[in-house]
Amino acid sequence: MNIQFADRMNNVHKSFVREILKVAANPQVISFAGGLPNPSSFPVLEVQNATHKVLNDDGYNVLQYSNTEGYLPLRQYIAERYFKKGVVVDPNEILITNGSQQGLDLIGKVLLNKNDDILMERPGYLGAIQAFSVFEPKFHTVPVVDDGVDIDSLKEVIKSHEPKLFYGVPNFQNPSGITYTAQNREIVAKILNEYNTIFIEDDPYGELRFMGQDVPSMKTYLGDNTILLGSFSKIVAPAMRLGWICARHEIMEKLIIAKQASDLHTNYFSQRVIHQYLIDNNIDNHIKKITELYKGQRNCMVSMIEKYFPQEVKSTKPEGGMFLWATLPEGFSSLELFDMAIKQNVAFVPGDPFYINEKGTNTMRLNYTSSTEEKIEEGIKRLSEAIKDLIK
Amino acid sequence: MNIQFADRMNNVHKSFVREILKVAANPQVISFAGGLPNPSSFPVLEVQNATHKVLNDDGYNVLQYSNTEGYLPLRQYIAERYFKKGVVVDPNEILITNGSQQGLDLIGKVLLNKNDDILMERPGYLGAIQAFSVFEPKFHTVPVVDDGVDIDSLKEVIKSHEPKLFYGVPNFQNPSGITYTAQNREIVAKILNEYNTIFIEDDPYGELRFMGQDVPSMKTYLGDNTILLGSFSKIVAPAMRLGWICARHEIMEKLIIAKQASDLHTNYFSQRVIHQYLIDNNIDNHIKKITELYKGQRNCMVSMIEKYFPQEVKSTKPEGGMFLWATLPEGFSSLELFDMAIKQNVAFVPGDPFYINEKGTNTMRLNYTSSTEEKIEEGIKRLSEAIKDLIK
Repeated sequence: MNIQFADRMNNVHKSFVREILKVAANPQVISFAGGLPNPSSFPVLEVQNATHKVLNDDGYNVLQYSNTEGYLPLRQYIAERYFKKGVVVDPNEILITNGSQQGLDLIGKVLLNKNDDILMERPGYLGAIQAFSVFEPKFHTVPVVDDGVDIDSLKEVIKSHEPKLFYGVPNFQNPSGITYTAQNREIVAKILNEYNTIFIEDDPYGELRFMGQDVPSMKTYLGDNTILLGSFSKIVAPAMRLGWICARHEIMEKLIIAKQASDLHTNYFSQRVIHQYLIDNNIDNHIKKITELYKGQRNCMVSMIEKYFPQEVKSTKPEGGMFLWATLPEGFSSLELFDMAIKQNVAFVPGDPFYINEKGTNTMRLNYTSSTEEKIEEGIKRLSEAIKDLIK
Repeated sequence: MNIQFADRMNNVHKSFVREILKVAANPQVISFAGGLPNPSSFPVLEVQNATHKVLNDDGYNVLQYSNTEGYLPLRQYIAERYFKKGVVVDPNEILITNGSQQGLDLIGKVLLNKNDDILMERPGYLGAIQAFSVFEPKFHTVPVVDDGVDIDSLKEVIKSHEPKLFYGVPNFQNPSGITYTAQNREIVAKILNEYNTIFIEDDPYGELRFMGQDVPSMKTYLGDNTILLGSFSKIVAPAMRLGWICARHEIMEKLIIAKQASDLHTNYFSQRVIHQYLIDNNIDNHIKKITELYKGQRNCMVSMIEKYFPQEVKSTKPEGGMFLWATLPEGFSSLELFDMAIKQNVAFVPGDPFYINEKGTNTMRLNYTSSTEEKIEEGIKRLSEAIKDLIK
């Protein structure tokens, strides 16, 4: 018997990265392919204590159904933390979601009609491409360059298409590691405001800065014209799938309805546990521990790249986050490199899935947070051998 | 600035029940409006122990990202439990979701195009109406009668529309408490098979039988032509939002892609905790405790209705689950009754939200699991006063 699936699924494919991760799971392989936080940073004991406390003090409520918006004290905590960083958000303009990935799905649900224009970074976060593809928009892209969004391209694309939404990751972008400078943000905001384009500011990595200076949120330039996404996955624990959306009241109302239709509410047990963890511990100290760890790994990868990679290969030098981005000389395919690298027992993510419709790109994403410095040195050595074989 | 929301949200409204629950939250009000399990049945201590164990033994994995399908030993546990009840499911045909509500969203996403025909029970589960409305199908309905689906109506509607899907809750239906008899299931299955209509068998209450005999799952009649939904919300704890979908391989593949795009994966911390709870405890004994509690509450409500309600009011006598359904004489509106009842400090859910497009219905849903027997007696007394005022 044949089933007629919904048309919207035609353009949504199984994550390519998933398939790569299967290959990279071989213990012989040194993998820069993953996107996982380093588990040694997880506050296992503190989560243990927080769980004990909430179940002990309020177990019958902690295990019951809850409201769609999310646990109010947790939303208040998030709002207060933003406030300290100069971002003003009302707790009632925050919705707790199953990781920020669900935020993308809900935004697509309430804002995207088929063939609506949406602007994406090039390269861009593949999870966002996947989430929005379900709603069959028309994707347009602007390149990400050293200081953020390429302004000339942005002007051109926005003028031709007047997109409803622009999705970006201004801090330590996935996949490139690039951060928009303050000046770049200001110009981008000005252009978006002219066209009433809403910026979806996805910020899972913003807290993971290990060098340089913090840059203000796009929301400080765009105000209510931003939908801001955040997550506890990279600073506490991804297994709990706790993220959030901040959006102005009018949009929030629709998001809450969509959330209710999607899954009633986010896991309340985990919301209570993470809230207890946050009020009982110093999260800034914890984040400092993570960023010091990642800084060492990043420095190691950057210097090993300088030492071993052929000079023709360019790469970014991120000031935070989990990834850097390398570019082979023109005309070489990173997919082809992947096949050669895997024979040397080293893995990465080829650039293709981070583009909407480009194949055979010469770029690749390298994750440094999941490997020890020894593995990073050995892995970059192996990878440079594969690169030399490819471009010789 | 005006925002153009997506058309799909036009027909999705904030849950009416949510608004009612706000009114019913007044501590003076005896509420039969909720749909909550009785928290006294929650295994708080056992969840405490299970959490301690998984964090202690495997904390760094328990807090990390996981796979989209869900924790394999949990899926195996579910498959084994089905097997004991005569339902054969491969663990790879199970996807762990954020409660079974998310199952409805994912099914809509992969199977419903705009204007596709879908068949629903009348009255039907309002969460399903809400979830599917997002995908803008054409709803058709068949009445639920004492022994299950009204067969003549089913034949007629299915012949005219050949719907792709039929959504139903065959055990202790929400809202009516009705269970399809074995004979009714057999006939329904035969008709659906003729038209290749897939049955979405939503079964959150199936384990909550407190009298009468178990009836085989629709899947035993329909096999691969069923999508079966289950949930731990009513037998362990709703806060964890753990449900599942069973579907044949071809459909499962698409569901996994949709799940990945929606939120990557279900809360892994909670999956591990609940799995540990399930293997360390006797869930059948726990379920027995719940059903004994609910049986007492149900018996009390049924006998109080017999004692106090005017004879013209009809009501169901469920053999399990959490709800019963009362019907006023023709021409009287339960919404009007609601306003009168709330003045007497008693609440229920008027029937309207359980219908697709009917207003001013004479039906209402009464929940018995959230009130003590004393409250049930007092509440039914007050409600019968309001009814007498209305129909006098």
